Amino acid sequence: MSQAPARILVVNGPNLNLLGTREPEVYGTRSLADLESDLRRRAAELGCEIEFAQSNSESEIIDLIQAARERVLAVILNPGALAHYSYAIADAIRSTALPVFEVHLSNIFAREEFRQRSVVAPAAVAVITGAGFIGYELALEAALRLAR
Amino acid sequence: MSQAPARILVVNGPNLNLLGTREPEVYGTRSLADLESDLRRRAAELGCEIEFAQSNSESEIIDLIQAARERVLAVILNPGALAHYSYAIADAIRSTALPVFEVHLSNIFAREEFRQRSVVAPAAVAVITGAGFIGYELALEAALRLAR
Amino acid sequence: MSQAPARILVVNGPNLNLLGTREPEVYGTRSLADLESDLRRRAAELGCEIEFAQSNSESEIIDLIQAARERVLAVILNPGALAHYSYAIADAIRSTALPVFEVHLSNIFAREEFRQRSVVAPAAVAVITGAGFIGYELALEAALRLAR
Amino acid sequence: MSQAPARILVVNGPNLNLLGTREPEVYGTRSLADLESDLRRRAAELGCEIEFAQSNSESEIIDLIQAARERVLAVILNPGALAHYSYAIADAIRSTALPVFEVHLSNIFAREEFRQRSVVAPAAVAVITGAGFIGYELALEAALRLAR
Amino acid sequence: MSQAPARILVVNGPNLNLLGTREPEVYGTRSLADLESDLRRRAAELGCEIEFAQSNSESEIIDLIQAARERVLAVILNPGALAHYSYAIADAIRSTALPVFEVHLSNIFAREEFRQRSVVAPAAVAVITGAGFIGYELALEAALRLAR
Amino acid sequence: MSQAPARILVVNGPNLNLLGTREPEVYGTRSLADLESDLRRRAAELGCEIEFAQSNSESEIIDLIQAARERVLAVILNPGALAHYSYAIADAIRSTALPVFEVHLSNIFAREEFRQRSVVAPAAVAVITGAGFIGYELALEAALRLAR
Amino acid sequence: MSQAPARILVVNGPNLNLLGTREPEVYGTRSLADLESDLRRRAAELGCEIEFAQSNSESEIIDLIQAARERVLAVILNPGALAHYSYAIADAIRSTALPVFEVHLSNIFAREEFRQRSVVAPAAVAVITGAGFIGYELALEAALRLAR
Amino acid sequence: MSQAPARILVVNGPNLNLLGTREPEVYGTRSLADLESDLRRRAAELGCEIEFAQSNSESEIIDLIQAARERVLAVILNPGALAHYSYAIADAIRSTALPVFEVHLSNIFAREEFRQRSVVAPAAVAVITGAGFIGYELALEAALRLAR
Amino acid sequence: MSQAPARILVVNGPNLNLLGTREPEVYGTRSLADLESDLRRRAAELGCEIEFAQSNSESEIIDLIQAARERVLAVILNPGALAHYSYAIADAIRSTALPVFEVHLSNIFAREEFRQRSVVAPAAVAVITGAGFIGYELALEAALRLAR
Amino acid sequence: MSQAPARILVVNGPNLNLLGTREPEVYGTRSLADLESDLRRRAAELGCEIEFAQSNSESEIIDLIQAARERVLAVILNPGALAHYSYAIADAIRSTALPVFEVHLSNIFAREEFRQRSVVAPAAVAVITGAGFIGYELALEAALRLAR
Amino acid sequence: MSQAPARILVVNGPNLNLLGTREPEVYGTRSLADLESDLRRRAAELGCEIEFAQSNSESEIIDLIQAARERVLAVILNPGALAHYSYAIADAIRSTALPVFEVHLSNIFAREEFRQRSVVAPAAVAVITGAGFIGYELALEAALRLAR
Amino acid sequence: MSQAPARILVVNGPNLNLLGTREPEVYGTRSLADLESDLRRRAAELGCEIEFAQSNSESEIIDLIQAARERVLAVILNPGALAHYSYAIADAIRSTALPVFEVHLSNIFAREEFRQRSVVAPAAVAVITGAGFIGYELALEAALRLAR
Repeated sequence: MSQAPARILVVNGPNLNLLGTREPEVYGTRSLADLESDLRRRAAELGCEIEFAQSNSESEIIDLIQAARERVLAVILNPGALAHYSYAIADAIRSTALPVFEVHLSNIFAREEFRQRSVVAPAAVAVITGAGFIGYELALEAALRLAR
Repeated sequence: MSQAPARILVVNGPNLNLLGTREPEVYGTRSLADLESDLRRRAAELGCEIEFAQSNSESEIIDLIQAARERVLAVILNPGALAHYSYAIADAIRSTALPVFEVHLSNIFAREEFRQRSVVAPAAVAVITGAGFIGYELALEAALRLAR
Repeated sequence: MSQAPARILVVNGPNLNLLGTREPEVYGTRSLADLESDLRRRAAELGCEIEFAQSNSESEIIDLIQAARERVLAVILNPGALAHYSYAIADAIRSTALPVFEVHLSNIFAREEFRQRSVVAPAAVAVITGAGFIGYELALEAALRLAR
Repeated sequence: MSQAPARILVVNGPNLNLLGTREPEVYGTRSLADLESDLRRRAAELGCEIEFAQSNSESEIIDLIQAARERVLAVILNPGALAHYSYAIADAIRSTALPVFEVHLSNIFAREEFRQRSVVAPAAVAVITGAGFIGYELALEAALRLAR
Repeated sequence: MSQAPARILVVNGPNLNLLGTREPEVYGTRSLADLESDLRRRAAELGCEIEFAQSNSESEIIDLIQAARERVLAVILNPGALAHYSYAIADAIRSTALPVFEVHLSNIFAREEFRQRSVVAPAAVAVITGAGFIGYELALEAALRLAR
Repeated sequence: MSQAPARILVVNGPNLNLLGTREPEVYGTRSLADLESDLRRRAAELGCEIEFAQSNSESEIIDLIQAARERVLAVILNPGALAHYSYAIADAIRSTALPVFEVHLSNIFAREEFRQRSVVAPAAVAVITGAGFIGYELALEAALRLAR
Repeated sequence: MSQAPARILVVNGPNLNLLGTREPEVYGTRSLADLESDLRRRAAELGCEIEFAQSNSESEIIDLIQAARERVLAVILNPGALAHYSYAIADAIRSTALPVFEVHLSNIFAREEFRQRSVVAPAAVAVITGAGFIGYELALEAALRLAR
Repeated sequence: MSQAPARILVVNGPNLNLLGTREPEVYGTRSLADLESDLRRRAAELGCEIEFAQSNSESEIIDLIQAARERVLAVILNPGALAHYSYAIADAIRSTALPVFEVHLSNIFAREEFRQRSVVAPAAVAVITGAGFIGYELALEAALRLAR
Repeated sequence: MSQAPARILVVNGPNLNLLGTREPEVYGTRSLADLESDLRRRAAELGCEIEFAQSNSESEIIDLIQAARERVLAVILNPGALAHYSYAIADAIRSTALPVFEVHLSNIFAREEFRQRSVVAPAAVAVITGAGFIGYELALEAALRLAR
Repeated sequence: MSQAPARILVVNGPNLNLLGTREPEVYGTRSLADLESDLRRRAAELGCEIEFAQSNSESEIIDLIQAARERVLAVILNPGALAHYSYAIADAIRSTALPVFEVHLSNIFAREEFRQRSVVAPAAVAVITGAGFIGYELALEAALRLAR
Repeated sequence: MSQAPARILVVNGPNLNLLGTREPEVYGTRSLADLESDLRRRAAELGCEIEFAQSNSESEIIDLIQAARERVLAVILNPGALAHYSYAIADAIRSTALPVFEVHLSNIFAREEFRQRSVVAPAAVAVITGAGFIGYELALEAALRLAR
Repeated sequence: MSQAPARILVVNGPNLNLLGTREPEVYGTRSLADLESDLRRRAAELGCEIEFAQSNSESEIIDLIQAARERVLAVILNPGALAHYSYAIADAIRSTALPVFEVHLSNIFAREEFRQRSVVAPAAVAVITGAGFIGYELALEAALRLAR
């Protein structure tokens, strides 16, 4: 994998397509397209490319991760609510052995009980939670520096 | 939303397509088509229209709810077994801010432990459980009167 | 019981006598008398009679249910906070074998942990929660159609 | 208390007034009056008198136990469903220091989870469960021999 | 409520009528009448009047609290064992919005597991536990100073 | 089994051979031999015969129960501490379909947490706990009257 | 169903498409295609046909099971990680009343806590776990002999 | 161990000696002797020998496993109810390092809560549950193919 | 200890030095210095002296309590968040056998789950929670009257 | 018991007979015979005699402890895996009132969850875990000095 | 606080002074001094200043946070093991209302159960776990961009 | 570390400075100074030196352990109540990789629930609990023989 291209897959889970309109007091008013353009700008600065996806479907997210395993250096994953029960996504990460950086927009530790634990996180390299859109940029930086 | 058309989305979750053949001692012998025609008749009486859907897929249910958010007054949702673990559907409800009326054919409180709690219900306006097909008609009435 | 008169007992548990003044942000501003007149009007439309009672006492509620067992077609019961611990009321329902429709004004699934489980509900036919006063009317309809 | 008259109070809790009609597959077909006459006959054989009461009310049961404390040798108590949550009855027993023999008609260990634990039992001398009407007679015998 | 008369309702729950005879190693040897006269003397010093009641009945306690809501400045409540399961009393407090000061004679934190949590306390303003009869006097003082 | 002889097997579990010397403040000062002669005397009065056994071994207790299944009307079983974990004894009871009456000398509900639940009891007909030696005599009576 | 053709559906859940590359220390180095050819060979020996499928999608698995219900004698199902939370798949099995034989490659009892319980298994006829590829062959044999 | 004879030890735990008479609705009507002859026939087909034992005693089962460790290729173990608490049998398996195949006649996942977890299973190679007598034959096959 | 001087130690735990600026909606706007002067004034009225301390350090609080044991009549302790985990402070109280009166400004029963239980409280004589600054004055009174 | 001979019973539970061959990475490579000779040598130095036993049987261990109660000063007990569920052994210790020193070779606190709690330990005087063979020698010393 | 200088406090909790020598397989081989110089270099790039501290003491950490509240823009906090029980540090954060960014070197979700939950995190703005030293740099960036 | 001097650090946690006066029925009447002189005498016999410390402060205990890591062969640690929550002390042990022998005077398994588990113990080599002062001497011996 040492000559893997500096390409990073960014996957957003269920309901993140509604960003900006969805509970703005929790998730802010900027949209997923805004996030994508922020990230593409930051990727350009860091000299890498990103693939950007969103899906409401657990299986599509698994497919995306599996399909990426030869092609990308790392995955930035915001599993949305699937974080709290999708052992299958966690197994997909383990199966591909891709370094995954889990991101949550809000601080999951400060919310409902069920949001305070991620079953995906044990399969991730690192988790960034509570930093909003910036969390994705931090994950990008971390991925480039850590994933090697 | 005050001039939203009196249109109601009815969504049925996994395995409800087998109604009538599926465990009739629990769920009765009438089919999903029977339910649909009962509901359409009742909707006509109440002067509203319904869209009627069934899916075995969590993501399709999320898509249906998201897509409906400009178009319908309320959603009647029988999430089937997904009620017990799909935090993503609950978040879809919260994201769209649509009034959702959760319906279960059987009384979930009188069944197995895992069926006694719905992770979707905290995001719903109201829950009707145990009233069989009639539960959907009651939900329709409630939706029209409460959802405004 | 097939020629039982179309008479329905409506029982309201502790603190429902304060409806309208009690935590109006949760329970609304209309009183128990308002509820009673709404229900009587709806009963008239549906061609049945209702008996309407309220008590702060678990034993009076048990007595009411027991006493009704020869006389009514069904019971609509809002057990108030007793829902969460009165196994004796649940046993009263089982003892009389009356069809009981449990109603809660607010959506108990969206409130404190202790309110999310009803020990009475497993003995009920159906449960309607979160539909406010309308929930009683729906229960009335369901009772007439289901209780037979 | 050594010259206390051989008088025993028998207290039956909620819904036991419906014995014989209530869930006969669990509790049998004989009535509370049958139980009373069985017990009176047995008491006569054993040379003691019984007071026999039934109440659906927790507070009446507490009052009965408190009022008996100067007058009876022991109490035979079937708390019904109150066994599972009435810490107040348990405290009444502790307060009067009367020897109490708790009886349940059915074997509570072989029923629903909530019935398998009695919060009253830690305050009792002995517990007899599953022996039907005979359980009361056994309790009577035990009371006479143990309570002194 | 600013000109509400300086009248305080004191309510004692189940088994407190046996104070002095009941488990004196836990609750001391002085009676409820002693408590009442102590409190009346202290009330006189503080320039207020008290109403003093005891009941073994949950519903009577609810009735007492409801009935007091126009007439008293605050309630001092020792719910006895009802503290540990009577959500209905807690709701009565919330319904009346009266400031309630919960008192326990013994330190509930140092006793059996079930006594270490009060379901009434979340609805109270303050809780005083372990100070014996003095706890009531402290509650009286607190009520006058805090309840306003 | 209708002409089965009126023969009852009495089985005592681990450590009951030390009765009288073992923790006399809990279990009293009389020995297992005393218990046996009490029971034989009582059996004679009731016109039945008893077989009396004690073993510290789970498997011997299972063997005793299995071997008795053609020969006795019922079993009186004090499983001692095995009550709290021997699912194998419970299965032996279920396998033989013999009516078993479980006895404990002390009131298990008033002791350590682990003693408050018996995994054997759900397989028993009835349970008598806290009545000391008398508990066995009561069980004998119950067995003769109930086991048929 | 007695003349149902000897056709067996084999369904593999999420991430099993990566067999051979996925965590080989846990799941071995042979691929899903290897498994399929092993099974087809074994099916030929046993005189039956198999349909072989893999999906990362819960709803596709439900669809496969539903669609098979007229056509196959039995289902061999390795639900992968979905075993641990997909109540909807369990309900699909119950709805179709097809005999299902659940297989796991590794011994789920010897792995992480969450893998030690399958919510699908209660709806299955039998479960074989830890026997690797051979487990499928055993399931095939069992299906033919048991499913009838 | 490579030249170990193809000899397999089959151990049956408590109450399996009553097979055929024991709860036939759960365990079927054929006896342990039937099982033994089925297995011997199957062993002959597969070219191996079996030793067949049953014991109601945990320690005898441990002794059997320990004694077999030089002599057999593998163990097929149905621990009966001991599966649910005998950590000592699990340790015996670990101590001998023999490959053990755990078998249960009924599907333990579909029965009482306590039967759904086996403390022996984490020490086994594989577990087969719910396949009745056939489960033993499958285990035999698996043992010969896997244990080497 | 009967001639111990009427001297009371008041100890405030972590973050109480920020009183008045810290979360004023929970803890009010008056400072720790205000509390100290209130208490000194009240102590003067009651004819006793107080020592007043605050520390963010568990060990300093233990040292303060230990050092006080010859010198003071009682301790008033607001352990702040240490209440919820400092078993060492509880042991310090037990070690010195000083009467301790635990105070919390807010009603801990009405806050987050972790604040609803104090591990220090079982070692205290009494606990006063929810009465704000007045709680300290009440504790002072209680200490003088009870601690002797 | 003051003139009891300085004789100590050493009892080893299930699977300890395999010491040296059993999981040497956990339990070391020396055998039970090595342990016995180490201990006999140490006993000679300390001027006492030891009886040394091993059994895989719970009941034999109970018998050994019971039989020793007149003859030995103390018992050193390594209950093996029985430590985690044998309430009957704990009761045997309580019944004989012999001072028991529980020993485990490995540090049970650093192993699987189920090994971290001993149900036997509450009945022991002291527990030594993690010190390997030396743990027995320490227990011997402690027994001689403490048991008196 | 709008003109607060771009000064960031970095606080390291217990045992982080041993970085580089402490469990290098978990925490890496670079020292705390290395971390400090990395961070100072990065701070210079970002145009801010950092204060860098380490303490093994909960109270010193609380003091550092309290003292910083007028002087710094934000705090980067690695609470070490205190994360898992120090409610007092969480309250210090709440008391000062400083934006805190919690950092852990290793991915706490992939470690022991007790490390998977932080009681400090609910009071933090954001949490970064698993990114090693880089996590601090990311936190610095986030602090400058988010804390304002 | 092979030429490390035979020097052992003995650390005593909170409240052990009060030994002899503190709850003598639990901890005996001899003081910490007595313990120190016992241990020094024993150390002299065994040819080693000890450093002896006590602190009520978690951070001082961490500092003591860290500072000792070059200088001592092993640590004997009685963490007092900190054993039950100080994950930071456990991490200090892991960080220094010093062999630690945990000692408790009383048998923690026979006391309150919270004392039955030590979060420090998983990081220790061995644990000795219940042997009073002798426990320290045993730990000294074990340390010299095991720590090497």
